[in-house]
Amino acid sequence: MAGNSFGKLFNLTTYGESHGPALGGVIDGCPSGIELDFDFIQNELNRRKPGQSAIVTQRKEPDTVKFHSGIFEGKTTGTPIGFVIENTNQKSHDYSHIKDSYRPSHADYTYDKKYGFRDYRGGGRSSARETACRVVAGAIAKQLLKNIEIKAYVSGVGPIKLNKPHTDINLNNIESNIVRCPDTEMATKMESFIKEVRSKGDTVGGIVTCVIKNVPVGLGEPVFDKLHAELGKAMLSINAVKGFEYGSGFHGSTMFGSDHNDAFNTNGTTKTNFSGGIQGGISNGMDIYFSVAFKPVATLIQEYETIDKEGKVVQMHGKGRHDPCVVPRAVPIVEAMAALVLADFYLINKMHN
Amino acid sequence: MAGNSFGKLFNLTTYGESHGPALGGVIDGCPSGIELDFDFIQNELNRRKPGQSAIVTQRKEPDTVKFHSGIFEGKTTGTPIGFVIENTNQKSHDYSHIKDSYRPSHADYTYDKKYGFRDYRGGGRSSARETACRVVAGAIAKQLLKNIEIKAYVSGVGPIKLNKPHTDINLNNIESNIVRCPDTEMATKMESFIKEVRSKGDTVGGIVTCVIKNVPVGLGEPVFDKLHAELGKAMLSINAVKGFEYGSGFHGSTMFGSDHNDAFNTNGTTKTNFSGGIQGGISNGMDIYFSVAFKPVATLIQEYETIDKEGKVVQMHGKGRHDPCVVPRAVPIVEAMAALVLADFYLINKMHN
Amino acid sequence: MAGNSFGKLFNLTTYGESHGPALGGVIDGCPSGIELDFDFIQNELNRRKPGQSAIVTQRKEPDTVKFHSGIFEGKTTGTPIGFVIENTNQKSHDYSHIKDSYRPSHADYTYDKKYGFRDYRGGGRSSARETACRVVAGAIAKQLLKNIEIKAYVSGVGPIKLNKPHTDINLNNIESNIVRCPDTEMATKMESFIKEVRSKGDTVGGIVTCVIKNVPVGLGEPVFDKLHAELGKAMLSINAVKGFEYGSGFHGSTMFGSDHNDAFNTNGTTKTNFSGGIQGGISNGMDIYFSVAFKPVATLIQEYETIDKEGKVVQMHGKGRHDPCVVPRAVPIVEAMAALVLADFYLINKMHN
Amino acid sequence: MAGNSFGKLFNLTTYGESHGPALGGVIDGCPSGIELDFDFIQNELNRRKPGQSAIVTQRKEPDTVKFHSGIFEGKTTGTPIGFVIENTNQKSHDYSHIKDSYRPSHADYTYDKKYGFRDYRGGGRSSARETACRVVAGAIAKQLLKNIEIKAYVSGVGPIKLNKPHTDINLNNIESNIVRCPDTEMATKMESFIKEVRSKGDTVGGIVTCVIKNVPVGLGEPVFDKLHAELGKAMLSINAVKGFEYGSGFHGSTMFGSDHNDAFNTNGTTKTNFSGGIQGGISNGMDIYFSVAFKPVATLIQEYETIDKEGKVVQMHGKGRHDPCVVPRAVPIVEAMAALVLADFYLINKMHN
Repeated sequence: MAGNSFGKLFNLTTYGESHGPALGGVIDGCPSGIELDFDFIQNELNRRKPGQSAIVTQRKEPDTVKFHSGIFEGKTTGTPIGFVIENTNQKSHDYSHIKDSYRPSHADYTYDKKYGFRDYRGGGRSSARETACRVVAGAIAKQLLKNIEIKAYVSGVGPIKLNKPHTDINLNNIESNIVRCPDTEMATKMESFIKEVRSKGDTVGGIVTCVIKNVPVGLGEPVFDKLHAELGKAMLSINAVKGFEYGSGFHGSTMFGSDHNDAFNTNGTTKTNFSGGIQGGISNGMDIYFSVAFKPVATLIQEYETIDKEGKVVQMHGKGRHDPCVVPRAVPIVEAMAALVLADFYLINKMHN
Repeated sequence: MAGNSFGKLFNLTTYGESHGPALGGVIDGCPSGIELDFDFIQNELNRRKPGQSAIVTQRKEPDTVKFHSGIFEGKTTGTPIGFVIENTNQKSHDYSHIKDSYRPSHADYTYDKKYGFRDYRGGGRSSARETACRVVAGAIAKQLLKNIEIKAYVSGVGPIKLNKPHTDINLNNIESNIVRCPDTEMATKMESFIKEVRSKGDTVGGIVTCVIKNVPVGLGEPVFDKLHAELGKAMLSINAVKGFEYGSGFHGSTMFGSDHNDAFNTNGTTKTNFSGGIQGGISNGMDIYFSVAFKPVATLIQEYETIDKEGKVVQMHGKGRHDPCVVPRAVPIVEAMAALVLADFYLINKMHN
Repeated sequence: MAGNSFGKLFNLTTYGESHGPALGGVIDGCPSGIELDFDFIQNELNRRKPGQSAIVTQRKEPDTVKFHSGIFEGKTTGTPIGFVIENTNQKSHDYSHIKDSYRPSHADYTYDKKYGFRDYRGGGRSSARETACRVVAGAIAKQLLKNIEIKAYVSGVGPIKLNKPHTDINLNNIESNIVRCPDTEMATKMESFIKEVRSKGDTVGGIVTCVIKNVPVGLGEPVFDKLHAELGKAMLSINAVKGFEYGSGFHGSTMFGSDHNDAFNTNGTTKTNFSGGIQGGISNGMDIYFSVAFKPVATLIQEYETIDKEGKVVQMHGKGRHDPCVVPRAVPIVEAMAALVLADFYLINKMHN
Repeated sequence: MAGNSFGKLFNLTTYGESHGPALGGVIDGCPSGIELDFDFIQNELNRRKPGQSAIVTQRKEPDTVKFHSGIFEGKTTGTPIGFVIENTNQKSHDYSHIKDSYRPSHADYTYDKKYGFRDYRGGGRSSARETACRVVAGAIAKQLLKNIEIKAYVSGVGPIKLNKPHTDINLNNIESNIVRCPDTEMATKMESFIKEVRSKGDTVGGIVTCVIKNVPVGLGEPVFDKLHAELGKAMLSINAVKGFEYGSGFHGSTMFGSDHNDAFNTNGTTKTNFSGGIQGGISNGMDIYFSVAFKPVATLIQEYETIDKEGKVVQMHGKGRHDPCVVPRAVPIVEAMAALVLADFYLINKMHN
């Protein structure tokens, strides 16, 4: 109920604050007998890791995951997989200045009002550091899903947009640059823009697009738990996300039915794919694709006014080590959440077979 | 697991096919002692009802709800509220032509592949007729939420967009026209456009915007069950929805942090509201607002080619009584789903008090 | 959360008060393609029905179930199965005397304190009439489980006990008498005893034993959701139940390990079955067996003193049509709940295959 | 779904195998602002700890709990509480002999059949070592429940029974002896008996009784989630439990209604308490009491025959460090599970206020 679990059959529960001793999680419901590739898991974490490039936060964390259970002789046992990621770089003294103040567009105010007080160090539980646990679980979900290919990439940084359908993009280029935009020319522009923004102590939003290939027909449950509804929830649960669209998305609302309908080929595939691989909430075997809008990070390295607990105006100056634009690091998180959604529906769907 | 339930503490389960004997639902977890206004409930259903105006489907259904339990002497008892809406106008013979064929961009194909067969009459369970049950539950949720005001309206029909922030709109005008757009001039344009689209046997998409006022601070759970994540899931679970954005939404992804941050007033309110009333997944007391994109209805009153179960090409002609544009009837459904989300978090939040 | 749902994958939600217009339920998660035997379902209801014999309550209810959804051309569709059982014999005037008073060992007092008020007619939601819905769902679960055989019988009425292991009993005799005790001699004694108790306006408790054969190895989840833990919860959720034991049960607590351990045969079966077909919470393929203790019904047709809402002593006299001993009618309810538990684990177990 | 979580609002998920690097858990849903007594938590763990006395297993484990999250400045924050208990005494070489064999009445056979293989070291996940995590969570639940007093004690060891109602027992004596039987004379007999059993390499079962005082009226949900149904499930989920009864229990099935009904006093309390503090599944404010039957531990320090994976007969000899009788160490586990059930209902009940 308290919102720290995701998934029904393939269920992840996470815990941990930005500056506590450790983050961790439990994956309950992973089937037995999956041979795990631990290098792959660590590599996924490395893609999310702070300090990985010149355009992300310079906080240094090894983000090494240790597994405590659920794995024996390299394979999942069907029992819960407990894991821990230690926080090694907790500079708590950095955060004393926010103890009694509410930073604009952060969760400081709402946490204090909801819980009566809060662990203010580095944003506590509201820190995106929590998503490291999602990446661990997503890396295991990907291994359960085998042939299903989940690829996310940066398609927008501020006003700079990659205006190409995913079918015109070489998804193998995503990791070829630090922005994680598969179009090299656009990636260069985006990188320059992020550096410029950072030099002003400012931040900027962006968009991540995700494509999922080789999805079997039949994943998703009708009515409330439609496949795209769960994908939407999954994406909107990532820090800083403001919007989600799949298939034709918001643009689809401007179209006519006669243009939007996806005519069938005789093998059950469709000639167009405005449906985004999902019809009636259930995968139809075509590529699933969706986009996720991220707002600009709220922490600025600038002087600003805000209020404290007593409602008095206070002068603050952004400190800490933050991202000028979250989308490059958000790419593996988007993939991880998509993997969790698919793993769950993959298992639920076995009920019908 | 099978996706026919929504909500944790305030939980709705629905059942029913478009052309079966009846639809129905169970609300489990409604607190005791709420004096129900039954006229209000029926009126909400009437706002969603087919045949209510010249721009919606002409199927005739009284959509009268009968309560079976959970209410005594006009008040909720705390036990589950069972209710039934009979289908009185089941023209099953209308649908024999789709028995063995897959209509493009409908759920025919995916249901058949997932379940092995399907109740093909009127789309069966995939019909938006199911949402009548959501409106009943939403109407009760609204009465639980008392002062919280939930108002949705049409802000786009095809290319015609109402480009005004909700703060510049008189929300009392929503029901003044059959489009449910509170700007009279725009409503007239939209109505003409829908009629024109219908005259061609075509359909068109649209956008519904929703505003929620007087929300107490503290609703929503951090991490996976963020308030906007559940709102997003709720909206994406409505038939034909392709996208969801809240607060600054997709536009927010193009902004700078220095513009996007919502500075505090000394009373805890904010000077701007790009956050959309939610920070860190928790309501901050400002207006919550979001938009929902609907694709054009897939049923066209036109000739078209498609495939049958055996993969053979067949010629079809759209029949039946369908909506040229769903957004006018979607308005009460969007409100109902928002009410269900808020009712759930309202009850969960009592845990902390 | 409010306790009106049972099961995870095979999920039943029920609603309805003893004297409201109808009871009903929704089964969500029943797989598609099960050909239903509707006579079997109605027959199961008839086994639970009031008025079926001289030793049960004489309330007259046809208890006819009507299905609203989830079934097409005689087969389950995979969508939720909604059903309704009308209350036709609501003698509400019978119950005005308990409106303001609390009957001893009923739920009157606790419902009033929990909910602020209650539907006092016939016990409202606390009436065992609710179990009719469980029997409907159990009858469908039995059809999902095919070869798994679930047989319950009366093994005790007050002090009269059937002291034989289930392996010495002919389970085909259960329905041969109105007590539902498969030992004819004991059944006769029990029947006389119940009649004698009733003639005094008194009631008596009893025991139902249940045997489940042909259970595949592997049902049940370790740790919290052990197969016997869910069976125990299921049984304890039936009205008037005070205890549950499986396998060696309470007697097992007096035994030595050297006597209690079940030695293996080479085919994986065991020579003895003190484990009751479950080891580590998971079925091992041997017969599952358990017993359920029912207290005497609280409604006596006698004069007694009790208190009213204000705490004043009032004189009352039991009226209404009640059972002198619930166990004969409890037999199909015990079977139904066992079927629900097994159906759920049967589906969950598919995850591992 | 996979059974490693317990509770709805106050939710515990555990992980860990007997001989893996660590056990751990996450408590999600603990309200904020509870000042934790960490000595109390560790002391509860010490009551369950191996090696604590001459009549329990001599495995040496410090069982020190480390908290990773959810606590700040000594108080719960409302975010999930992650914790870890390291396994320091993993003698894995002890268990090679059971790698390919199935010990009688253990979970070896069922785990292998369900999951395809298993972590055989020390029983893996099926080891009662898992219950250490429950004790941690239970100790926090007790602090949430404040005045509610939960006291369990040993009331039976093999044939030696404490035949006194809990009202005739001084519950302050429970910890005065290593058996945890509050009657000193009986405790001495039980201790001797356990030592005698151990000297033969045998084991014996027993009974734990639990009393809960100062329970507010109104805890528990009607129908499926009755308070005693959840208590029953909680107890039956503990390793080696074969039966559960509350209030009059199995004996109640032999009684007449005229003897069993609990007449009211004018203040709402009852003159007798055969109901066991629960009516209609909801607490009535009287003492809740129940008994839990434990079978004898399956591991004997004796020679025996069993089968291996291929179904061949093998000769084995029990090794390892095991309990001759589990009930003394089960006392804190029973209390912990009772605390988890009550904490959950305590939070759910806030919905109605």
